[in-house]
Amino acid sequence: MNHSLFDKHEKTLDSALNAIKTRGYWSPFDEMPSPRAYGETARADGEAAFKSQLERPFELHQPGSSGTVGEERSPFGFALNIGYPKVEPDALIAAAQKAQTQYRKAGPKAWVGVSLEIVARLNQASFEIAHSVMHTTGQAFMMAFQAGGPHAQDRALEAIVYAWDAMRDIPETAYWEKPQGKNPPLAMEKRFTIVPRGIGLVIGCCTFPTWNSYPGMFADLATGNAVIVKPHPAAILPLAITVRIARQVLKEAGFDPNVVTLLATAPNDGALVQSLATRDEIRLIDFTGCTANGDWLETHARQAQVYTEKAGVNQIVIDSADELKPVVRNIAFSLALYSGQMCTAPQNIYVPRDGIKTAAGTISFDAVAQSIAEAVQKLTADPAKAVELTGAIQNNGVLDRIEQVATLGTPLLDSQSLVHPAFPDAKVNTPILLKLDADRDEATFTQEWFGPIAFVIATGSTEHSLELAGRIARTRGALTLSVYSTDEQVLDAADEAAAFGGVALSINLTGGVFVNQSAAFSDFHATGANPAANASLSDAAFVANRFRVVQSRRHVPQREPA
Amino acid sequence: MNHSLFDKHEKTLDSALNAIKTRGYWSPFDEMPSPRAYGETARADGEAAFKSQLERPFELHQPGSSGTVGEERSPFGFALNIGYPKVEPDALIAAAQKAQTQYRKAGPKAWVGVSLEIVARLNQASFEIAHSVMHTTGQAFMMAFQAGGPHAQDRALEAIVYAWDAMRDIPETAYWEKPQGKNPPLAMEKRFTIVPRGIGLVIGCCTFPTWNSYPGMFADLATGNAVIVKPHPAAILPLAITVRIARQVLKEAGFDPNVVTLLATAPNDGALVQSLATRDEIRLIDFTGCTANGDWLETHARQAQVYTEKAGVNQIVIDSADELKPVVRNIAFSLALYSGQMCTAPQNIYVPRDGIKTAAGTISFDAVAQSIAEAVQKLTADPAKAVELTGAIQNNGVLDRIEQVATLGTPLLDSQSLVHPAFPDAKVNTPILLKLDADRDEATFTQEWFGPIAFVIATGSTEHSLELAGRIARTRGALTLSVYSTDEQVLDAADEAAAFGGVALSINLTGGVFVNQSAAFSDFHATGANPAANASLSDAAFVANRFRVVQSRRHVPQREPA
Repeated sequence: MNHSLFDKHEKTLDSALNAIKTRGYWSPFDEMPSPRAYGETARADGEAAFKSQLERPFELHQPGSSGTVGEERSPFGFALNIGYPKVEPDALIAAAQKAQTQYRKAGPKAWVGVSLEIVARLNQASFEIAHSVMHTTGQAFMMAFQAGGPHAQDRALEAIVYAWDAMRDIPETAYWEKPQGKNPPLAMEKRFTIVPRGIGLVIGCCTFPTWNSYPGMFADLATGNAVIVKPHPAAILPLAITVRIARQVLKEAGFDPNVVTLLATAPNDGALVQSLATRDEIRLIDFTGCTANGDWLETHARQAQVYTEKAGVNQIVIDSADELKPVVRNIAFSLALYSGQMCTAPQNIYVPRDGIKTAAGTISFDAVAQSIAEAVQKLTADPAKAVELTGAIQNNGVLDRIEQVATLGTPLLDSQSLVHPAFPDAKVNTPILLKLDADRDEATFTQEWFGPIAFVIATGSTEHSLELAGRIARTRGALTLSVYSTDEQVLDAADEAAAFGGVALSINLTGGVFVNQSAAFSDFHATGANPAANASLSDAAFVANRFRVVQSRRHVPQREPA
Repeated sequence: MNHSLFDKHEKTLDSALNAIKTRGYWSPFDEMPSPRAYGETARADGEAAFKSQLERPFELHQPGSSGTVGEERSPFGFALNIGYPKVEPDALIAAAQKAQTQYRKAGPKAWVGVSLEIVARLNQASFEIAHSVMHTTGQAFMMAFQAGGPHAQDRALEAIVYAWDAMRDIPETAYWEKPQGKNPPLAMEKRFTIVPRGIGLVIGCCTFPTWNSYPGMFADLATGNAVIVKPHPAAILPLAITVRIARQVLKEAGFDPNVVTLLATAPNDGALVQSLATRDEIRLIDFTGCTANGDWLETHARQAQVYTEKAGVNQIVIDSADELKPVVRNIAFSLALYSGQMCTAPQNIYVPRDGIKTAAGTISFDAVAQSIAEAVQKLTADPAKAVELTGAIQNNGVLDRIEQVATLGTPLLDSQSLVHPAFPDAKVNTPILLKLDADRDEATFTQEWFGPIAFVIATGSTEHSLELAGRIARTRGALTLSVYSTDEQVLDAADEAAAFGGVALSINLTGGVFVNQSAAFSDFHATGANPAANASLSDAAFVANRFRVVQSRRHVPQREPA
C-alpha cells in the first residue's frame, strides 16, 4: 500500500538509509538557528509562539480531559503557569486503542510517511520548541535549539529509517513452490502482515525532553503503534507542542489523532506512572531517567518491551599528550557544557599518580589537575559568556549534590554561583572539581553525581586507569569514555577496556568535537551493553521488536517460470 | 577481517540471504534420506555410528568433568545406557568465558564461517543424528531424519544468515566530515566493533532436541558468543553429537573448542538449571519447554536476553468447503503426525453447531466430527503404516493426559495402543478425539493438552469460532491457526483473528502441506506476539540483540573527495 506522505519524503528516507549504513556525516536539518535556513521571521515567530502559551491553558483537545495540571518553572527564574489538560489514563488508553486499530491497518508506508511528515513539521517549529526546551531544562538557547530541535529531529528520523529498514525486509507476499519429485510441486502464496505491538508509553526526562523521547516515540509510530507521551512534570511544554503537531498531521492524513496523546502530570507522579506502565494494553515503554525508576519498569512491566536509559559514570583516561593545553581546554568545555547535566558528560578523570608524558616532558598529577581546573575557571570567568555555555541548573537536586560532594575529596575548584545578565533569578553554577584517590575513594567515584561535578582521580598507572574505566562502565554503566594518549598500545588497550565496558570511546579529542556530543546517523548513543542503557539509539534491535509479522499461506496454482 | 570458512560457504550464505528476503522455497540440504544425496553407505554408517554409542561413555573431552550422567530411554522400548561427562557448571562457565574472549576477537566473518561449517558437518551426520533423534523423542525414522536433520539444519542456517544480515549492516569504519562554515571541516574516523553478549545458554526440549535448539545455538555462535548447550535429560544424544561436531570444527579452525560445551544432566535438573541461568556470565538464554519454566526464566534471569517457546493452543476453524473429504484427511494427518507431540499440532477444531456448507449441501456438526474421527481411524488402522506416522509416545506424562482428558467430553474416538512391528516395547498411541461445546467446556479447551488429544468443538457460528480462535491465541498462546472456508469474507475475518491473536494462519490446507509444518526461509515459526513464544524463528529481532556495537572515534586529516 502506497501513501502520499511516504512518496513526499521518500528522497529523505533514501538518504537516511544510506547514512545509517555508511555512517558518515549527514542531516537534512540545519543545526544553526539562521534566518537563511528557517526564514527571516522564524526566530521572532518562535519566541512569540512560546510566550503566547505562558500563563494560560495549553490548547490540546484530547478525550477524557477535565481540569488542568502543570507546575513547570523555568530554571531561568519564572513560573510558566501553563495548564495542560488533565486526563484519566483509562480514557487515554481506550482512545489510543481505538485509534491504533485504524492506524494499524494503514500499513508501513503510511506509518513511515506520517512519521516523516511530523518530523518535518517539528523542524519548522524548531524556534518555538527551542524556547520551550530552554525554559524547562535550563539549557542555554543555542543548545536548546540544536539539541532540542534539529538534533532531536535527526534522532527521530534515525529511528524512523531503522524501522523502515526492518519492515521493508519483509515482503508483502511470496510465491513458494516446493518440488515433489515426479509429482507436481506444492505451490503456495504467502502473505506477511506487519502487526504493531499496540500502545507505546514514552516517559520523558527533564533535561532533554525531546532528544531523549523522540527515538522511542517515532520508532513506535513508524511501526504502527499508538503512543502515549508522558513528559517529566518539570518539562512538559516541549513534548506538549510535539504531541499537538503530531495530532495535527494525523488528522490531516485522515487518522484518528489519538494515535498520539499527551499525559501531563503533576510532580511526584510515580504511582500514576507505575499503574499505567503495567497495564496490559501498554506493550512498549521507552524510559529516560533515574536507575531506580528504570529498574522498576524493567522488573514489573513484564507485558511490555521496555527500553531504558538510566544513570552512568562517564570517564576520561589521560595517559599522555603532545601538548596538555588543547586536552584540558576540550575537557573543560565538556564539564561546563549545560553544567554537566548531560547523560554523556564526563565525571571521572583518571591521571596516573606519577603524572603524564608530553612533548615538553612529564607533567605531574597535581599540575594536570590544576591545569583542568584553570581551564574550567577561564571558560566560566565571564558570566555573560559562561551562561551561554552552562545554561541554568535544572533542579534543586543538582544544587544539593554540589553541596553534598564538596566534603568528599580534596578541593580543586569550587562551584561558583553566577548572575545571569538576562535572567537575574536564574540558578547558574559552574563546575566543582575535586581530587580523589583511586585506592581510597572508590565509593565516591563509582556513583553518578549528575550535574557540574567532576573528579580528577590519581591512579597507579594508565593500566590501572583503564582497568577502572572498563570495570566501572561494565558494572555501573557509562555512555562515554574518553582517552588521551600518544601511544598506540595504550589506545589498543583502551579499545579493549571499551569493549569490556560496552562503552563508546573517543580518542584524543582536542578540537571542536566533545565527548558529550553524539551525531545521529553516525554515532550510536549508548550501546545497550552496560547498565546505563539497555538499548542503543538507534540500531536494528531498537526497532525490530516493536512489530511482529503474522503470515498466512494458501495453495495457489503453479506459476509458469518467469 | 576475512576468514577461509566464510569464503568457503559464501555462495550458500548469499542464496540464504536472497531466500529470507523473497521467502520462496529454498534449502541447500536434501530432505530425503536418499543415497544419491547422502552417499551409498550413509544410511548404514549413520545407524552403525548411532549403535556404537550405546551402552558406553560418550566421548567428549570437556574441562571439569568427573563421572558420568544420563538416563535416556528410547520411547521405542530400550535404555540407551550412554554416560555423558558430568561437569561442574562453574568449570564450564570458566572454560566458556576463556574461549569466548579469544573467539570474540576473530570477528563476524570468522563466527559466521565457523557456524556455517558446523552446519555443513551436521548435514553429513544426518543419519546418525536421525537415529539419535528417533530414539530419544519417539519420532518415526522419516520425521527424525527430516525434522532432526536437514530441516533443523535449515533453521540453523536461517539464524546464521539473519545474524550475518544484521552484522553486515554495521560498517567496520566510517569517515565523518562535518562542515564548519568558513572554517575547515571536522574530520573523524570512526570504528565500529561488534561485541558479543558473552555466554549463551541453550535449553533443549525432549521432542525436537535439534530443531528447537539450533536457532538459538547458531544465532549465538554466529554473533560471537560462546554457547553452553543444556539438553533435556531425556534427549541428550542428538545435542551431544551436535556439540562434538561443533567442537571439532572449532578446534580445526584454531579456536578453543570450549566455545561450545555440553551440560548433560540427570532428570529433575530444575534447581541446577535455575542456578546456572541466573549467573551473571550467562547473557543469552534460548529455552523451549513448558510455560512454568519459561516464565520462571523470563522473570528471574534478568541479566540475560531470554528467548522462550512455551505452551500454546493451536486451533482449526471449519466454516465451509467444496468437499469435506480432503479437509478431514488433511486434519487427520496433522493430528496423527508424531502423535500430536508437536508444538504446532492442532488441538481445538471449531465447527458451527448448525453444520458447515459444502458443494453437496450442509453437513451437520456431528457428521463433520464423525468424518474427522473416521479419517483418523483410517489413517491409523494398519499398525505397520501407522507407526511410521505416529512414532512413539515420548513420555508417560502424555499417556497420563490421554487418560485424564477422556472423561472431560463426549467420546468421539478412543486412543488405541498399537504394537510396533519392529519395537514390541514401544509405547504407541493413536489420537483421542472428544466432542466439546464452546459455551460449556472453555475450561477444558483453553488448556494445552500436549499429545494425541484433540477436541471437535461446537460453536454458535463461524464468527464465534474466529472470536474464540483470536482470543485464545492472544491470551493462551498459539503457534498455528488453520481455517477452512470458501467465503473470502470469512477468510478476511480469519486474517483479522490471526492478527489479533498474533498467530500464523493456514488457509484451506487439503493437499500435501500440513498445518504442523513450517518451512525455513519462508514460514516464520511463532510470531513472538502471543504467550506461546516471545520470539520468532528467525527474524531480525531474534538476532539483533545478541551482539552490541562499541565504537571509537578520533580526528583524522581531512580527506580529498573521491
